Amino acid sequence: MFSDIEVTSPADFHVHLRQGEMCKVVTPLVRKGGFKLAYVMPNLRPPITTTEMALTYKKELEAIDPGTEYLMTLYLSPDLTPNEIRKAKDAGIVGVKSYPRGVTTNSEGGIESYEAYYPVFEAMEKVGMVLNLHGEVPSDPTSNTCVLNAEIKFLPHLRSIHERFPKLRIVLEHATTRAAVETVKSLGETVGCTITAHHLALTVDDWAGQGFHYCKPVAKFPDDRLALREVIREGHPRFFLGSDSAPHPSETKSTSTPQVGCAAGVFTSAHLLPLTAHLLEEFGALDKLEGFVSINGRRFYGKEVAAGSEKIRLRRSSAPIIVPNAFGAGTQSVVPFMAGGRINWDIVDS
Amino acid sequence: MFSDIEVTSPADFHVHLRQGEMCKVVTPLVRKGGFKLAYVMPNLRPPITTTEMALTYKKELEAIDPGTEYLMTLYLSPDLTPNEIRKAKDAGIVGVKSYPRGVTTNSEGGIESYEAYYPVFEAMEKVGMVLNLHGEVPSDPTSNTCVLNAEIKFLPHLRSIHERFPKLRIVLEHATTRAAVETVKSLGETVGCTITAHHLALTVDDWAGQGFHYCKPVAKFPDDRLALREVIREGHPRFFLGSDSAPHPSETKSTSTPQVGCAAGVFTSAHLLPLTAHLLEEFGALDKLEGFVSINGRRFYGKEVAAGSEKIRLRRSSAPIIVPNAFGAGTQSVVPFMAGGRINWDIVDS
Repeated sequence: MFSDIEVTSPADFHVHLRQGEMCKVVTPLVRKGGFKLAYVMPNLRPPITTTEMALTYKKELEAIDPGTEYLMTLYLSPDLTPNEIRKAKDAGIVGVKSYPRGVTTNSEGGIESYEAYYPVFEAMEKVGMVLNLHGEVPSDPTSNTCVLNAEIKFLPHLRSIHERFPKLRIVLEHATTRAAVETVKSLGETVGCTITAHHLALTVDDWAGQGFHYCKPVAKFPDDRLALREVIREGHPRFFLGSDSAPHPSETKSTSTPQVGCAAGVFTSAHLLPLTAHLLEEFGALDKLEGFVSINGRRFYGKEVAAGSEKIRLRRSSAPIIVPNAFGAGTQSVVPFMAGGRINWDIVDS
Repeated sequence: MFSDIEVTSPADFHVHLRQGEMCKVVTPLVRKGGFKLAYVMPNLRPPITTTEMALTYKKELEAIDPGTEYLMTLYLSPDLTPNEIRKAKDAGIVGVKSYPRGVTTNSEGGIESYEAYYPVFEAMEKVGMVLNLHGEVPSDPTSNTCVLNAEIKFLPHLRSIHERFPKLRIVLEHATTRAAVETVKSLGETVGCTITAHHLALTVDDWAGQGFHYCKPVAKFPDDRLALREVIREGHPRFFLGSDSAPHPSETKSTSTPQVGCAAGVFTSAHLLPLTAHLLEEFGALDKLEGFVSINGRRFYGKEVAAGSEKIRLRRSSAPIIVPNAFGAGTQSVVPFMAGGRINWDIVDS
């Protein structure tokens, strides 16, 4: 049994750092959670749709915590042009995030059809930007589409974009189903897939009546969770961690009215590396930790680090670590995943 | 378009009337909601397991509101004997409710296997008591069982009990899936099925992150909801209303902590008849209202009423009726389904 693990420069390839006061609370928690790199989602209000907005946002993040490397993304919308893609690439922006309309937090401006974006995808393929897909179609009772099959019904879109743009690097974000895992495995080397920490723990039973476990995509069947665990245990090189850590004020998670339900999102940044180690160990994949949180994702994105780069050391705690009940305070109080629960690993301060 | 409807003596064949102060709040609301008969669930603390307990409970209900007819049930447990069944039948108790262990409110004492109860079922078949099945198996990740397929996985139990006791009247309670509807249709005349009002309105999307719509069984896919609507529209005589109206203090519905989620249950008693009319009209089944809320269930239970019995009159309201935000007060405040929403029908005071 391992008691110490070293992980080279962990990278979270999907994280929400928000704006304003909440941004100040959660941005430093990326590093506290053991991560050196944050791949930053653009679903702000307004969404990050231009190079300038992304660079401004990056400066804000660096002002809050310069110790993390921030990879920036743009929000796919009709405003985005091939010209803007080239400009963004030159400015160091890494990816473009696609949200189907209305399926998650701040996605009201999301896309409805992909064909309209083919010129943008073509430019991205050419310059080497990554397309990040929130892989869900909107709910539609007339076609029996709901949050449970929204991801499965999205997979043909993934296939067709990949077929049309085989050299475009695409990441299917926060996969939650066996079907998604199998689809990504069946596609070429340019298609990767992020998996969150919380989807390794949750099934639908856990968010039924429990707002703190409610997120999009929702956690699915036990067999879907098993598929996520299996692909990590197998060490598949195109699957890697993207936490989708999504802070919401605790009030919006703990309470609802008949008119307004809970906010969708699970917050994991603050203890992400120990949490991931804890979960991987539970299903016998602790030896795949470094691949999952550092090597696979960095290789996919071409962000490999040199041998001898800073490593984060985890130690099995002699007494279980109790996850704090909240980070931040007042209206910016955020409840972490497994708040009050126990995890077995802790980061050793260097 | 109808503007007035008369319904003969509506009967709710599945309702939770609770105990203590909550019982005093909700019991009179059965009649307020337009119903003359309440088929009363036995999952109290402690559960109603004997004839005496059921009769005592019935007296309590009659003391609170003597204007409703209460049909009483026993809770299936190892305490229940064929002798007690005969005693219960003689005392006018109508049914026995089976809860799988741990799947809903106060079901910790529920059953794990049906074979052990075959002597009880045999006695019930002989004396003519009804078996009411909460048709879900407990969640079990190792067999990919969760709240979404718990009902479908229960259906083989329904089939086998019916095959073994073909004359035993069985009701599959609060069906939520197309598979359940089709199974019941395929079985003999002794198998009936209740459908709640709220499952005619909700799908999984509605309870995702919304505790007020969380109940057991959970609402399923849009196609499942469609199957419930279709079987009512078809006027199938073995499908009838059982509201499963399940009051919980609003605090336990509106708030959760990371450790404790929301209570499971939707409260519909207080406006059940107008609500049901409203929903049936939405899917073109208003002409089946009387069959669904009165005739089918009463016939199944042998509780037909004489021609000329009291009718409840509904009128299409010129201004939409706003559903109250709560009934009761303080710790016994209960939020009704569609609180603050609009329904088109109202009961005309006679």
